[in-house]
Amino acid sequence: MGQTNEYAHRKANKTIKLVDASGNPVAGKEVGLKQTNHKFLFGASTFDAIEVANKSVDSDRLAFLEDKMDKFMDVFNFATLPFYWAQFEPEQGKPRTEELKVAAQWLKKRNIALKGHPLCWHTLTAPWLLDMSSEDRLKAQFARIERDVSDFKGLIDTWDVLNEVVIMPIFDKYDNGITRIAKDLGRVGIVKEMFAKTRETNPGATLLLNDFNTSINFEILIDGCLNAGVPIDAIGIQSHQHQGYWGREKLEEVLDRFSHFGLPIHFTENTLTSGHLMPPEIEDLNDYQIDDWPTTPEFEERQAKEVEEMYSILFKHPQVEAITTWKFSDEGAWLGAPAGFLRKDNSPKPSYEVLKKLIKGDWNTTMTSKTDDNGMLSFEGFLGEYDLVYGDKKVSFKLDKDGETVQMTI
Amino acid sequence: MGQTNEYAHRKANKTIKLVDASGNPVAGKEVGLKQTNHKFLFGASTFDAIEVANKSVDSDRLAFLEDKMDKFMDVFNFATLPFYWAQFEPEQGKPRTEELKVAAQWLKKRNIALKGHPLCWHTLTAPWLLDMSSEDRLKAQFARIERDVSDFKGLIDTWDVLNEVVIMPIFDKYDNGITRIAKDLGRVGIVKEMFAKTRETNPGATLLLNDFNTSINFEILIDGCLNAGVPIDAIGIQSHQHQGYWGREKLEEVLDRFSHFGLPIHFTENTLTSGHLMPPEIEDLNDYQIDDWPTTPEFEERQAKEVEEMYSILFKHPQVEAITTWKFSDEGAWLGAPAGFLRKDNSPKPSYEVLKKLIKGDWNTTMTSKTDDNGMLSFEGFLGEYDLVYGDKKVSFKLDKDGETVQMTI
Repeated sequence: MGQTNEYAHRKANKTIKLVDASGNPVAGKEVGLKQTNHKFLFGASTFDAIEVANKSVDSDRLAFLEDKMDKFMDVFNFATLPFYWAQFEPEQGKPRTEELKVAAQWLKKRNIALKGHPLCWHTLTAPWLLDMSSEDRLKAQFARIERDVSDFKGLIDTWDVLNEVVIMPIFDKYDNGITRIAKDLGRVGIVKEMFAKTRETNPGATLLLNDFNTSINFEILIDGCLNAGVPIDAIGIQSHQHQGYWGREKLEEVLDRFSHFGLPIHFTENTLTSGHLMPPEIEDLNDYQIDDWPTTPEFEERQAKEVEEMYSILFKHPQVEAITTWKFSDEGAWLGAPAGFLRKDNSPKPSYEVLKKLIKGDWNTTMTSKTDDNGMLSFEGFLGEYDLVYGDKKVSFKLDKDGETVQMTI
Repeated sequence: MGQTNEYAHRKANKTIKLVDASGNPVAGKEVGLKQTNHKFLFGASTFDAIEVANKSVDSDRLAFLEDKMDKFMDVFNFATLPFYWAQFEPEQGKPRTEELKVAAQWLKKRNIALKGHPLCWHTLTAPWLLDMSSEDRLKAQFARIERDVSDFKGLIDTWDVLNEVVIMPIFDKYDNGITRIAKDLGRVGIVKEMFAKTRETNPGATLLLNDFNTSINFEILIDGCLNAGVPIDAIGIQSHQHQGYWGREKLEEVLDRFSHFGLPIHFTENTLTSGHLMPPEIEDLNDYQIDDWPTTPEFEERQAKEVEEMYSILFKHPQVEAITTWKFSDEGAWLGAPAGFLRKDNSPKPSYEVLKKLIKGDWNTTMTSKTDDNGMLSFEGFLGEYDLVYGDKKVSFKLDKDGETVQMTI
């Protein structure tokens, strides 16, 4: 357990009075305190959960994907599920709601927090929007938010409401319905409308504005949205680093610029590969198409070091509340990049072991303590969920902030 | 007079019934119609007007500056006066209000429309702001706006309220009070506050947000401000082209992006030099310091062509309402650039003659017409002010839009 002050914002103190079923203090006894979950969200996109939960693949494939999900759940506690409109509702009126619900329930049962991604994006949006009038297109986008956010309420209460708004109205790779809406409403206008609709549908949800653009463009957009009264709950920052790790300096500079809004920050889509770097002259990462992008032992070491540094910097920053690595495994990774913590065969890379050591070791509070004569014990631990174990009994509790003494019956 | 449709938005039709002092129609007579002023604002910064109006220089110098101002007034109808805080109020509490008022009155008497530049900018701001607390600094900025906008109400009713807000909070060349305010309030926040104060002080004024940044940064800023309810009357675009003329393509692309807000556009600070081009690798134009930057016959021809094309493109665009060339003469031009329409000795360059031909010729309606048997005459002309001349009499009127028949007594 790390004891340095740099993690003070991630910790709290708790005093527990432990009593037995009859209400008598459990005095002078050794008890175990075991952190079972983090308040901080350590995430990955877990699109495989759909096939695993729905058992929609053959048994060999299922076993392989279950192994992958086990390795995910052994370390991580936060999953992003795909709501790309083109895939979620390829034919208008036939959304894949049930399949996604099964996956969400499967993950929730395993104590994994969930985020839906995204509700409004110009890429992978419903192609049939293009056949509609401008008015109907906007109505369809609203109806989509209303339906999906409402269907998943209680299961998914965190949403990337909009993705990549900075380029949304000027995206010109191909025509699409959302760019058209963004042109009509303007950037702040579309953010305002989509947040209002999402908030109205799920008032308690955590709503993100997500972008890969970390320049002052995104800062000014956020500034404009906040001044226009848009209820942004967290800023979503993508960090696909196929062209090389940002490094401490850029990372801290980005944190500095985006933290001044006083909002929580989620690193929503992180990539650090264990392969060669994409050449710097590529502007749109999608333009880099190669046959084979291998993971190598040398670059796996580099990836592990970068992951360790980056996660440590983010975990130390008081406003960062989530880090999601975009691809948990190399299998099927975007652009074929060796972007995962697992190789294609599910074997863990050094980056996986490094993160496991941080999340389950250095940043995890698991200890034994002894109650005093009155059955009292105090401890400081990382925020999250705990089991207090005494003999063969246990009681679970949350450590969320410093608070009054709590009596627990075991 | 140009008769093509591309200028239709700059013109109107008018029918006049001309009667004599007794009310009888002036029938079947030749009358002259002479456009004496444009509705469109053809401007320059005219800081010399301060010395001319106040006669604060010796007689030789005064004659030279008067000659320069005459050449300005012979073609142009719009002047930008300097309100740089560092120069306007170098010592707190001792503003140069009187001097500036004399200049403004002098110009107004000569039918020149006026703009004040700027009310809030991080460059050339009052150095004494740095000695103040954050609260007092903001108060001083508000008080400055209240005082100056109120003192000049009726004389100056158009203001560059803020200048260069995109870089305002991240400007790091030197510490200054305004960057500090911008950091505290955020970009949209400072725009909101300064516009509100200016609007409150002069409700009828035309208020501009001015920037040299023509990237999507400025677009997003405007979008955010408008969504936050900031009453921007016109978008101010700087176009200092020391590194070369933007050309038709970039100019139309900028117009396209900034016109979608539906607001009037002012080209507030235009520079096209008649010298060699500043090297493209210079990022901050201020970093280019050379001993001599001559005007040459060859480059004067280039300047004239560029001026002709640029002014024609802007005059054709329905949302552009003003073009201000930043330096009317090479004398004392920013960076020593040959940026003027006059050389240092006040001799006109070809660019001056080209513009005079456009403004006073091609885009000017001056004609003779004959009243019919009822004293009626109809004409189409460029918007602006007119004299109707009949014999040795004249009557002045405005042509602002198509309208009902107007009776005029001569």
